[in-house]
Amino acid sequence: MSSSTPDPADPVFRLHVGGKMAVASTVPLTSREDLSLAYTPGVARVCEAIAADPALVDTYTWVSHTVAVVTDGSAVLGLGNIGPRAALPVMEGKAVLFKQFAGVDAVPVCLDTQDVDEIVATVKALAPSFGGINLEDISAPRCFEVERRLDEALDIPVFHDDQHGTAIVVLAALRNAATLLNRKLGDLRVAVSGAGAAGVAVTKMLIAGGVDPDRVVVCDSRGIIGRHRELTGTKAELAEITNAEGRQGDITEALRDADVLVGVSGGQIPEAAVAGMAPGGIVFALANPTPEVHPEVAARHVAVVATGRSDYPNQINNVLAFPGVFRGALDAGATRITDSMKVAAADAIAGVVAESLTADAIVPSPLDPRVAPAVAEAVAEAARRDGVARR
Amino acid sequence: MSSSTPDPADPVFRLHVGGKMAVASTVPLTSREDLSLAYTPGVARVCEAIAADPALVDTYTWVSHTVAVVTDGSAVLGLGNIGPRAALPVMEGKAVLFKQFAGVDAVPVCLDTQDVDEIVATVKALAPSFGGINLEDISAPRCFEVERRLDEALDIPVFHDDQHGTAIVVLAALRNAATLLNRKLGDLRVAVSGAGAAGVAVTKMLIAGGVDPDRVVVCDSRGIIGRHRELTGTKAELAEITNAEGRQGDITEALRDADVLVGVSGGQIPEAAVAGMAPGGIVFALANPTPEVHPEVAARHVAVVATGRSDYPNQINNVLAFPGVFRGALDAGATRITDSMKVAAADAIAGVVAESLTADAIVPSPLDPRVAPAVAEAVAEAARRDGVARR
Repeated sequence: MSSSTPDPADPVFRLHVGGKMAVASTVPLTSREDLSLAYTPGVARVCEAIAADPALVDTYTWVSHTVAVVTDGSAVLGLGNIGPRAALPVMEGKAVLFKQFAGVDAVPVCLDTQDVDEIVATVKALAPSFGGINLEDISAPRCFEVERRLDEALDIPVFHDDQHGTAIVVLAALRNAATLLNRKLGDLRVAVSGAGAAGVAVTKMLIAGGVDPDRVVVCDSRGIIGRHRELTGTKAELAEITNAEGRQGDITEALRDADVLVGVSGGQIPEAAVAGMAPGGIVFALANPTPEVHPEVAARHVAVVATGRSDYPNQINNVLAFPGVFRGALDAGATRITDSMKVAAADAIAGVVAESLTADAIVPSPLDPRVAPAVAEAVAEAARRDGVARR
Repeated sequence: MSSSTPDPADPVFRLHVGGKMAVASTVPLTSREDLSLAYTPGVARVCEAIAADPALVDTYTWVSHTVAVVTDGSAVLGLGNIGPRAALPVMEGKAVLFKQFAGVDAVPVCLDTQDVDEIVATVKALAPSFGGINLEDISAPRCFEVERRLDEALDIPVFHDDQHGTAIVVLAALRNAATLLNRKLGDLRVAVSGAGAAGVAVTKMLIAGGVDPDRVVVCDSRGIIGRHRELTGTKAELAEITNAEGRQGDITEALRDADVLVGVSGGQIPEAAVAGMAPGGIVFALANPTPEVHPEVAARHVAVVATGRSDYPNQINNVLAFPGVFRGALDAGATRITDSMKVAAADAIAGVVAESLTADAIVPSPLDPRVAPAVAEAVAEAARRDGVARR
């Protein structure tokens, strides 16, 4: 039996029978009176009120606490392009985490198209039903254009979690690791391995959070990104803003004397490359289930190690970010999610464990109930400071 | 204060604060073990299994009990084209009725477009997320094309409730009224007032259920539909199959010697016209909140009266049909909803009160808990008979 053949006794498959979520009514529906309030004829008055003042949709419907979790199934976990139906269990999982950690009502929307124009048109069309759009598991570079076009077109928050969720938690972890090691973010030499959705967003987020772009190098599968290469789009942009020294070469060269490695590539990084890092360094090896460097190997050469795995300390898990980010954005009626809202989210995550920092606890546990409320409050405040809040 | 200005003390507006629905997790999410089963890494195995065998999406996700309630807000209740946001309270109401009566998890999808091509493209794109598509409050004649094209394109049930929900309950009511009056459906002379979404569907459903098309006349706002008029589309089709006598004229002429009036127009019908019906007749005046003929006026001239209102006997309410229709279609894994599934639904609704028929109880109460299970069973059986069931 292959690992993908469902074994009915397997706890994972047993748990998934019938899916992981349901819809619930929040109003009584047992008498004629109930029906006449929640449905016809009463509901018509609510419809008329919203038709007269569209802002009332936030008060009298579920949109103000609702998010669509939208995917095209093109880059699901580490499984690749498995399509919308096979992506649905992940989107349901995301939806129930939204509910569990932040009381956000999220609905999976798995699209039967991978065409950028069609994805954008579909999400624009269904947007009135939701208070926010969480894009998920859409492959690079299409994900950049999808997010940019939706962000421009819609007046509700649009957030590609694979980019910004990861980036927020990485920034939080790096802040705490730097504090622990008594280093300043702006002094750290950072190598990012991977220039897909997460790599690009991590790089931009670290810079927005205080890392010096001149001290950052990013590698893709062909090596260090810089002006020496013929590049277009997002990679050309990275070549402009990073790698001030004009380094060329592979990941070993990128890591030479680096203080920080952020691995978001899925590839393997040899121990010799990690050994070339500056003393007292930091390794975040986030590929799942197989980190770019095994955490025990990394620990031979650096002072702090984090992974994406739940069976090692310092799990960099997006669930620390996305529930609180959307809860805060929805609470503030934010029309978009700005960079400073993301930085505020990272600071809030870092702050939860700031008083109890150890090398094995630079980020909170994914189950820590203090995280989402702290993130939500920080994000809502930042939205109001940035002038993108409607309430 | 106009009737559309929200009064916070008004029980309708009070009930609607925050909307009427929520999402719920059906799995535990309180330990690391829970997370690793419902989300990463466990969920990846479920994704791989569905990628290998797409039919497993029915077993391991919520799609098999999920319906999208899709509207473009163009014909909401009797309020007209109030747009997608103002339509949302109705769609939420529909969703909670789906849950309450049939355990179906329904999600409102209010579209920011009223273009037929865009509606069809959007619903096709999001279809993998749902087990069925309930179209709602889309104006005629666009609703006919939207439904036809989606029905052809998708392998899940597509059902425009304003058409078929109404038609199913009308057929149920007419069956019981005929039984009560000791008449045969095939002998009844039927006048349908209204040739919009509901009028067209009622006419077709009555014919599918046993009414003789030669004995049917349909009126629109210009009078009786027949070959004497220049018509296109659905009305030309009605002119072909109904009005064998070639009647011409207005509703008064249509009602002359008729046994049955079905009003689904919203217009007013004068008492004199009703007085011209054959003795012992039947009037269903379904416009809401103002029936085409006041039920007390109608009762002076006919033996059985039904309306769409909850404050008179014999309420023709779609909630008798749609929850059970989708429950049955989903239970059977139906790829579409056939005419005989709709007729089976009507028979099941009629059957619930068949043993206790009176002129004031030709249909069950909308709250009767026996209805949806009976409809679901009948619809699933009909799907299997028709060869459209996948399970």
